[in-house]
Amino acid sequence: MHSPLGVALLGSTGSIGTSTLRVLARHPERFRAVALTANGNVSALKAQVDAWAPSYVGVVSGEPPADSPHWRTGAACLIEAASHPDVDIVLNAVVGAAGLQATLAALAAGKRVALANKETLVVAGPVVMAAARAGKGTLVPVDSEHSAILQCLAGRRPDEIRRLVITASGGPFRTWPSARIPSATIADALNHPTWRMGSKITVDSATLANKALEVIEAHYLFGVPYDRIDVVVHPQSIVHSFVEFTDGSMLAQLGVPSMELPILYALTHPERLPDDGVPRFDPVSIGSLTFEPVRHADFPALSLGVTAGRTGGAAPAVFNAANEEAVAAFLAGRLTFGQIADRIRHALDDLSHRPGHALEELLEADAEARRHVNSRLSC
Amino acid sequence: MHSPLGVALLGSTGSIGTSTLRVLARHPERFRAVALTANGNVSALKAQVDAWAPSYVGVVSGEPPADSPHWRTGAACLIEAASHPDVDIVLNAVVGAAGLQATLAALAAGKRVALANKETLVVAGPVVMAAARAGKGTLVPVDSEHSAILQCLAGRRPDEIRRLVITASGGPFRTWPSARIPSATIADALNHPTWRMGSKITVDSATLANKALEVIEAHYLFGVPYDRIDVVVHPQSIVHSFVEFTDGSMLAQLGVPSMELPILYALTHPERLPDDGVPRFDPVSIGSLTFEPVRHADFPALSLGVTAGRTGGAAPAVFNAANEEAVAAFLAGRLTFGQIADRIRHALDDLSHRPGHALEELLEADAEARRHVNSRLSC
Repeated sequence: MHSPLGVALLGSTGSIGTSTLRVLARHPERFRAVALTANGNVSALKAQVDAWAPSYVGVVSGEPPADSPHWRTGAACLIEAASHPDVDIVLNAVVGAAGLQATLAALAAGKRVALANKETLVVAGPVVMAAARAGKGTLVPVDSEHSAILQCLAGRRPDEIRRLVITASGGPFRTWPSARIPSATIADALNHPTWRMGSKITVDSATLANKALEVIEAHYLFGVPYDRIDVVVHPQSIVHSFVEFTDGSMLAQLGVPSMELPILYALTHPERLPDDGVPRFDPVSIGSLTFEPVRHADFPALSLGVTAGRTGGAAPAVFNAANEEAVAAFLAGRLTFGQIADRIRHALDDLSHRPGHALEELLEADAEARRHVNSRLSC
Repeated sequence: MHSPLGVALLGSTGSIGTSTLRVLARHPERFRAVALTANGNVSALKAQVDAWAPSYVGVVSGEPPADSPHWRTGAACLIEAASHPDVDIVLNAVVGAAGLQATLAALAAGKRVALANKETLVVAGPVVMAAARAGKGTLVPVDSEHSAILQCLAGRRPDEIRRLVITASGGPFRTWPSARIPSATIADALNHPTWRMGSKITVDSATLANKALEVIEAHYLFGVPYDRIDVVVHPQSIVHSFVEFTDGSMLAQLGVPSMELPILYALTHPERLPDDGVPRFDPVSIGSLTFEPVRHADFPALSLGVTAGRTGGAAPAVFNAANEEAVAAFLAGRLTFGQIADRIRHALDDLSHRPGHALEELLEADAEARRHVNSRLSC
């Protein structure tokens, strides 16, 4: 019997964070929550701390409760938690590019990084993968699509991959007429058909920017060229992705839309841990699985992002940052839904070819793209 | 560069045999046909021999052409071919229980057996698996369902399996009203919706006896108890089977209905060999994958066979032999479709509890079941 592995949970009060705590609660003999950090939801974090008694607590933008003076504050807490000596696994569920430094710190400290923060790889894929290769740390995806691919690839060699096929729910506007999509409201965009997630990723699912981020993430994680990564719309969100092999065979991983399984698998890969709490998928009960092509003209953010990925350098970071800011502006009522992709396109047109090899250059591109979007918002 | 592996193809003129030769023809650097045997189609075998120039040729029930005096004849040719010194892989596509001795001979001689003859495992599963464990030989399934399971299990431990879910097309009578099925004609039964196969297996697909054989085969091949092997009807025959793991995840292998991929994989497992000739599956082009429960009351052969599997001993051999004879009688116009399952049930009622540990006992049970069915046919 091994002692439980120490888990640092970055973003513990969000959707992934709370799902992770449900998974950890079922396996106290295997995992313990050593460090919890949240962005700013202090009351929710306090309740988690009372329940889990982690040895490290951090809040990025907020003040600790009066009875918790030992809490750490500020963005540095992500890095402290990620490199804490009692931590074996860092579950990085920070939203947006803010999670990058924590991933790098964890890899440098030899931790396993269970990565729910896809922006980490989009902003700085080559830097992060080099850090993973250089150190003793490992990088395991938490995204359901990438977890599916990782599971399909178990026991296979990279040169046996012919193609990755990432599934997309299609989002709430999948069946909307083209003319209506650009004027979709915030409420429309947050009404995701199959997944319950945070607001930023839910809007990304509506624009399909999320799939662009996932294509870029898959490119780096699995070393597959962009022309061998496809996206297919699958409204039921049951097939989480496919891998096609060089002999013509395809494997798929399936499950009901729940993050608990990919979280669990990210903690245990390459092993599987018996868990009766993960919702089970029954083919008969689902009845029908359907697949459709992507309506690229109606969801231009996907092509913009994949093109940015192919361009490489600073372009993926520009895409990601412009998207983050445009989505924030949409959620603040300052951009229409259709303008999200427009602003991403303008930022890419102006900034794609900035230098983007070193981490510093990538972070500068990120900041410049944010300014690019925000400076063009009406006041 | 290794020299090509020698393949003995038993049943070379049948559906699996000709598919295998198409696969071999695409990979002359990896495989060569060393031995070909056929049951009785001498003219087709002669054409294959002219094309492939194998060093060993056998015909079970037929006379060699006048210019081919070196051909071997009689049932013993299966064993000779299976244990031929130049042979590395025996692809056993013999129809029915006649393939059993060849499988055992090949395993004893340390060959890889690519097993399309599922009766081998149904009749004598414990004997065959013991032979596989005892010798240097290995057993790899060619059935598309078992190939799918094998592919999903790559890199996984047996104790990580929660459940196998074998898919069934449902056959030509899937949507027929219950009352009409027992009087289905031979032409109806041979009109399989998705797979082009020999007539015996096509009738087995119509009765669902085929799925019982596959459940029993899966039980032995993968060591999974019967209560953890389910069957689900999937009319499109695209998902070839599922594996559910103990953490709740499911993997599936998908492809268009073609035996070339499972044949290729059986030859190369655990490796994959690049092959552009295997028909590719495109999720978008298929549109919809559906799943339904089995109509057990209307297709009683499935439950009869699985019950025989659970009973063990001689019961699976009795089920298989009674089914073979009843199907032959149906195809000869001597039984109705509905009587196939009736005759299997009667044979099992009378013979299930015969001794069935040693191979000899199993072969006696097989013979007794055949007599049981045939002696009750009207003349």
